[in-house]
Amino acid sequence: MASQGVTPRSEDYSRWYTEVVQKADLADYAPVRGCMIIKPYGYELWENIRAELDKRFKATGHRNAYFPLFIPMSFLQKEAEHVEGFAPELAVVTHGGGQKLEEPLVVRPTSETVIGHAFAQWIQSYRDLPLLINQWANVVRWELRTRLFLRTLEFLWQEGHTAHATWEEAQEETLRMLDVYADFAINEAAIPVIRGRKSDQEKFAGAEASYTIEAMMGNKWALQSGTSHNLGQNFAKAFEIRYLDPNNELQYCYTTSWGLSTRIIGAIIMTHGDDRGLRLPPRLAPIQVVIVPIFKNEEEKSAVMKAARRIHETLLSVGVRTHLDDREGMTPGFKFNDWELRGVPGRMEIGPRDVEKKSVVLARRDVPGKEGKQTAAQDRIIPAVTRLLTDIQRSMLRQATAFRDANIHEASDYEELKKAVADGWALIWHCGTAECEARIKEDTKATSRCFPLDLNKEGPGDATCAVCGKPAQGKAYFARAY
Amino acid sequence: MASQGVTPRSEDYSRWYTEVVQKADLADYAPVRGCMIIKPYGYELWENIRAELDKRFKATGHRNAYFPLFIPMSFLQKEAEHVEGFAPELAVVTHGGGQKLEEPLVVRPTSETVIGHAFAQWIQSYRDLPLLINQWANVVRWELRTRLFLRTLEFLWQEGHTAHATWEEAQEETLRMLDVYADFAINEAAIPVIRGRKSDQEKFAGAEASYTIEAMMGNKWALQSGTSHNLGQNFAKAFEIRYLDPNNELQYCYTTSWGLSTRIIGAIIMTHGDDRGLRLPPRLAPIQVVIVPIFKNEEEKSAVMKAARRIHETLLSVGVRTHLDDREGMTPGFKFNDWELRGVPGRMEIGPRDVEKKSVVLARRDVPGKEGKQTAAQDRIIPAVTRLLTDIQRSMLRQATAFRDANIHEASDYEELKKAVADGWALIWHCGTAECEARIKEDTKATSRCFPLDLNKEGPGDATCAVCGKPAQGKAYFARAY
Repeated sequence: MASQGVTPRSEDYSRWYTEVVQKADLADYAPVRGCMIIKPYGYELWENIRAELDKRFKATGHRNAYFPLFIPMSFLQKEAEHVEGFAPELAVVTHGGGQKLEEPLVVRPTSETVIGHAFAQWIQSYRDLPLLINQWANVVRWELRTRLFLRTLEFLWQEGHTAHATWEEAQEETLRMLDVYADFAINEAAIPVIRGRKSDQEKFAGAEASYTIEAMMGNKWALQSGTSHNLGQNFAKAFEIRYLDPNNELQYCYTTSWGLSTRIIGAIIMTHGDDRGLRLPPRLAPIQVVIVPIFKNEEEKSAVMKAARRIHETLLSVGVRTHLDDREGMTPGFKFNDWELRGVPGRMEIGPRDVEKKSVVLARRDVPGKEGKQTAAQDRIIPAVTRLLTDIQRSMLRQATAFRDANIHEASDYEELKKAVADGWALIWHCGTAECEARIKEDTKATSRCFPLDLNKEGPGDATCAVCGKPAQGKAYFARAY
Repeated sequence: MASQGVTPRSEDYSRWYTEVVQKADLADYAPVRGCMIIKPYGYELWENIRAELDKRFKATGHRNAYFPLFIPMSFLQKEAEHVEGFAPELAVVTHGGGQKLEEPLVVRPTSETVIGHAFAQWIQSYRDLPLLINQWANVVRWELRTRLFLRTLEFLWQEGHTAHATWEEAQEETLRMLDVYADFAINEAAIPVIRGRKSDQEKFAGAEASYTIEAMMGNKWALQSGTSHNLGQNFAKAFEIRYLDPNNELQYCYTTSWGLSTRIIGAIIMTHGDDRGLRLPPRLAPIQVVIVPIFKNEEEKSAVMKAARRIHETLLSVGVRTHLDDREGMTPGFKFNDWELRGVPGRMEIGPRDVEKKSVVLARRDVPGKEGKQTAAQDRIIPAVTRLLTDIQRSMLRQATAFRDANIHEASDYEELKKAVADGWALIWHCGTAECEARIKEDTKATSRCFPLDLNKEGPGDATCAVCGKPAQGKAYFARAY
């Protein structure tokens, strides 16, 4: 049984995280340093994430396409900030087919350049705008310190790339996709993310402005979980993405890009996980309900398994992702722990007494012990399970929201900020300057997370930075972050 | 109008192909030599292909996972035939994060090695078998002569990898997945593929036996459209993939692999395309029905568009992939040609007279001119369109099957074989030797395609090779091939 458990979060949060990822069979390290193998259970979670996002991208008019993995080194150099930001992280192909290449090829770290090049061919006139494209792909960034899902050399993601006639339309798109991410995170992943603008220091290399959804992890650190960038005309000018306007004059486009990656799986783990292991939100869980049959002899087994199979079929038929754990040679208790570790939201126990009474016991992953158990009639199993899953989804979001709100502290001076970021997030009036952010990071290891949109609807007035006293740009969160 | 047309197939088949791919907006060449950009319309086709295959993989018990893009060079060298086969085609990453790597990394050309390495960790006992995994991924092979979809440096595919306790189970899996490919090709893509075994010369590098689905293209060349390999214990021995059997003895597994790629899009184009452009089978077409409204003035437009929009909504609501072409400033005739070039199977025309009569005109892409037109009542539009699409799907398969069968010729000696492969496929008794295949290729450019399973259910008896007179291994197809 010991091998089933995980290190308590309070003892070593980082070890807890890695153990959950590995023991829940989500992913493991690959033989190449910093690369990861996403195992079937983890990949099924990603497939559910992808399906929900893809639906939202298509509903907002985007079409998927696929662009090459390899990018000529010269392309990256066309946008000065962009190459500066990405150069240290590049994997470079120098040989192909046994020959040294004339120009080295970069394995895409992101695709603004190669997609910008394509957009320049595709867009002729204002009639071709807006151009709304998304790509599901793998990307490579040569990270030195890696951690499964959070930061790996290769990861899976989607990257949206769009072109527009005006700055306003590009800005609207940037915020629309930030909202799509927030809607997904809150309503599917049960992660109460905060939408905000990154400070100039933290924005994407080549962007005019970057927006983020920031989530609070179980150790009160922040995790940037998705970003949306207004690229202004930076890439349009670097790649000559131009259109003929209605007056037949050539204009540069305004472009955006936005991305969300397998990192979101790390966010799910660290938002919801507890000392028993993973807890998955029902709407994304590969297995929503696991049925554990309980019996002592062949006669009981026959009756229990018959009922279990019937309920399994019933739930599958209405689209509830149900798994019947009919493994031999394991106690029910071992199975309970196993599925708790894997974060399955609902567990159904069915034994001989339940068969007799035509009932089952439903247990909730989010409420441990007896308190989370209830009896349900077998002939009302569909509404009972549906309600259970809806309740769990809501309760997980509520719990995470309460935790987040309890750990955000307004700070009016540097001392308060230091105290706040030692065990949570600080909210301060912030000048937004590089100097101030560097000082805070140096002193506290906390970084500027974002200027939250909801708290910055009005300007800062004559508020001043809580740290340096200069005029404030707005209210900002600071926190330790992954 | 001229810019809409494509070069006739009879004039230059190869040019016809490239023009169809580019003008139908399926794909285009990328800035990196031999790489391709899959445009939204082509990618939507791939999404439909992927969904149909994925459904079949899951129904046969396979689970998706994701393995790293980069493979240590030393891994490839563990299986001698494998590295020999792939070494000339490798893209090699030598630098990462600004440093020269200690061991160069290969960009995966296929993943038997890295997945074999993982399987060796995952599999402990016979209880872990069979292990049935599939991966959707991009792969890179450094091809010198490239052609969109058919042979590109990078392509998208799925690769199945499975491990079994016995040779028989591995063989069963190999043939099961070949059948899955054939079922998909025939019933979804309307391509009447032939299932067969590859000769020893043509098998996968490292396989014990390779099986293929072979399709006949419009120019009577063959295209290998999917392959399934019984790898025996070759990779199990190279990567120590072993299991404890019920007697607690350590045994090597038997493994298989099978793959189907974006190349299948090339097969669809060349099986069905005609001198007007692409023809897509309804079951895979991104747009199954396009509605073209016809009007001369604002009054007519208002009535026509109202009816068109209503029908559009009706068809979308029952899952028919319908597009309403409301582009301004184009004649209906221009739109007809445009959608014919893009291969949309069904076209609905609706003008003022149709509105009056509460009817529409349905035109079939597979039957040109008046013969392919029919009138349908607006209030019976769902059954009319459903029937139309079913008919087109069937008719496309029937047409392709008739074409294939008319162009396969049995040949009983070398002269007949030469004649047959000059304009079709030859079926001969074949010895299966490298010498004989090399001689045929040298003389005729035709290669051994496969020993078809259906025609080799009985052994060859005392039949002899039609070319060299040695004892025959079985009946085999020879043809020019991509």
